[in-house]
Amino acid sequence: MIDRRTAVKSMSLGAASIAVGGAGMTSEARGAGSGKPVFVLVHGAWHGAWTWSDLVPELAKAGYASVALDLPGAGTRTLLPKSFQKRPLDMAAFSTEMSPVAAITQDERTSATIDVVKCAASMGNGRVVLVGHSWGGLTISRVAEAVPELLQSVVYLSAFLLPNGVPAGALLGDAAFSTSLVNPMMKADPQKVGALRMDTRTDDPAGRAAMKRAFYGDISDERFDVIANFLHPDEVASTAGVPMAITGSRYGTVQRHYIAMDADNAIPPVAQDMMVKVVDESKIGGSTSVHRMSGSHSPFFAKPGELAQVLGSVAG
Amino acid sequence: MIDRRTAVKSMSLGAASIAVGGAGMTSEARGAGSGKPVFVLVHGAWHGAWTWSDLVPELAKAGYASVALDLPGAGTRTLLPKSFQKRPLDMAAFSTEMSPVAAITQDERTSATIDVVKCAASMGNGRVVLVGHSWGGLTISRVAEAVPELLQSVVYLSAFLLPNGVPAGALLGDAAFSTSLVNPMMKADPQKVGALRMDTRTDDPAGRAAMKRAFYGDISDERFDVIANFLHPDEVASTAGVPMAITGSRYGTVQRHYIAMDADNAIPPVAQDMMVKVVDESKIGGSTSVHRMSGSHSPFFAKPGELAQVLGSVAG
Repeated sequence: MIDRRTAVKSMSLGAASIAVGGAGMTSEARGAGSGKPVFVLVHGAWHGAWTWSDLVPELAKAGYASVALDLPGAGTRTLLPKSFQKRPLDMAAFSTEMSPVAAITQDERTSATIDVVKCAASMGNGRVVLVGHSWGGLTISRVAEAVPELLQSVVYLSAFLLPNGVPAGALLGDAAFSTSLVNPMMKADPQKVGALRMDTRTDDPAGRAAMKRAFYGDISDERFDVIANFLHPDEVASTAGVPMAITGSRYGTVQRHYIAMDADNAIPPVAQDMMVKVVDESKIGGSTSVHRMSGSHSPFFAKPGELAQVLGSVAG
Repeated sequence: MIDRRTAVKSMSLGAASIAVGGAGMTSEARGAGSGKPVFVLVHGAWHGAWTWSDLVPELAKAGYASVALDLPGAGTRTLLPKSFQKRPLDMAAFSTEMSPVAAITQDERTSATIDVVKCAASMGNGRVVLVGHSWGGLTISRVAEAVPELLQSVVYLSAFLLPNGVPAGALLGDAAFSTSLVNPMMKADPQKVGALRMDTRTDDPAGRAAMKRAFYGDISDERFDVIANFLHPDEVASTAGVPMAITGSRYGTVQRHYIAMDADNAIPPVAQDMMVKVVDESKIGGSTSVHRMSGSHSPFFAKPGELAQVLGSVAG
């Protein structure tokens, strides 16, 4: 058994070490690019690289290579609360156990994604289409600020799109988010456990129905059961409190797209439109091209073919 | 609630429809290829496309695009037994419930993978390095028989490598497999439920330790808990009974590689060597290049960087 803090650190190293490889990449590898941009896909809260399992083959069908990553503390790079493993669940323990991913930072996530973007840029035409779903918006804005020259565009898929200086947590209190169905599912105090914690394995029919309604309104119950089996219970809480830091001369130069979902119960349509308006009016530069799709928060499983088409139109 | 059989069929359609796109792909997309082959990654039993979450960024670091897929009935394309969702588990129900993926066939898996290989070939230099882990070996041999002209090579990662005419099930009784730790974990009769069924969420410490020892001998307990959260309980059983069908004039023309793991408790090293020997001596064509790595059955999580290096040496 190893110390949890050590486990998290060593897990992050895998992605962090990519930077070295990127810098040292041979010119042969750099010159190998095709005429198309490569997609880098950043998942949302409680999700991982598996989010894109249906989309990646659809993008390939359209001729696009893509690289999906697990953010530090997420997907196969998360760690589980011990209490989550017990059957039946001891809710008293689950609602108070400190999260094993509480120490993960936004900076680690940003840095891991930059490393992947550098590698992806070397594979394609030198530019990347950077896509973030939901909470992944926090990371892609910061990556766009760090490496604007590597991006063909940045795409917010029903994602958090924040103006400079504002943390995601500040937005959640806005009236535009009042109909979001996410908050009632939290099973612990984020301040105390360091995570936004859901019981993703609940066998309570009402709890399962609520989780489906919030995130996966338009897939079958059977498919949702499979998807829920992949969700991890703890989403790092600290990222909600970090103010966005972007500038007009860097972030503002990157083409910005928003894919809006009209039946989204996690980030309500009014909240999506509000974020686009606020960022565009902040005069950070450019304006956001909005693409509208029908459906709930998670089109990558509900309609991966249609999503790939929209993304293809963005990539050109 | 929809009929399960319908759910499985519609799930398969996503991948099957790729063939149409592949055939109709524009010449621009076809011509967009780089100088390198693209990897197509096929997971093993109880696994999905998520298997490769750590490897995909490592391959990108080396300049290689890759496409991982969920085989029909696996990963996000599986379906879960109802009894698996209950806490605590009712073992009597779990050991007898018919599997919702029992009707999935090897042909569906082969066909879905061929579709992805066609797309991947159009993205890179026109040739694909096709990698199969463990039970994925059953699929990649058949894909190599179907589209040898699209493959730069086929790579068995501690995988089932079968001679013509032999089903995987026939091999499992061989003395070379006698030390495998997989069989004792089956919780139901495959003949009765249509699946090789494991309780991947067990909270019995002995059961968890056995599962880790069989598949993930060289990662931490905490990381294994996360990985096990992704495994699905039902692996389609029928694929074990279908005799391999390959020919010298097609399969035999494809470069063949085997990555052998020296501390593998799922497919014992003697079984790996036995399969290489049997296929090479079957005079199907060529001989298998064997690459030896130290470690257990799952190097994609234990040492993704080293695995990417070996795969890079295969791809050239």
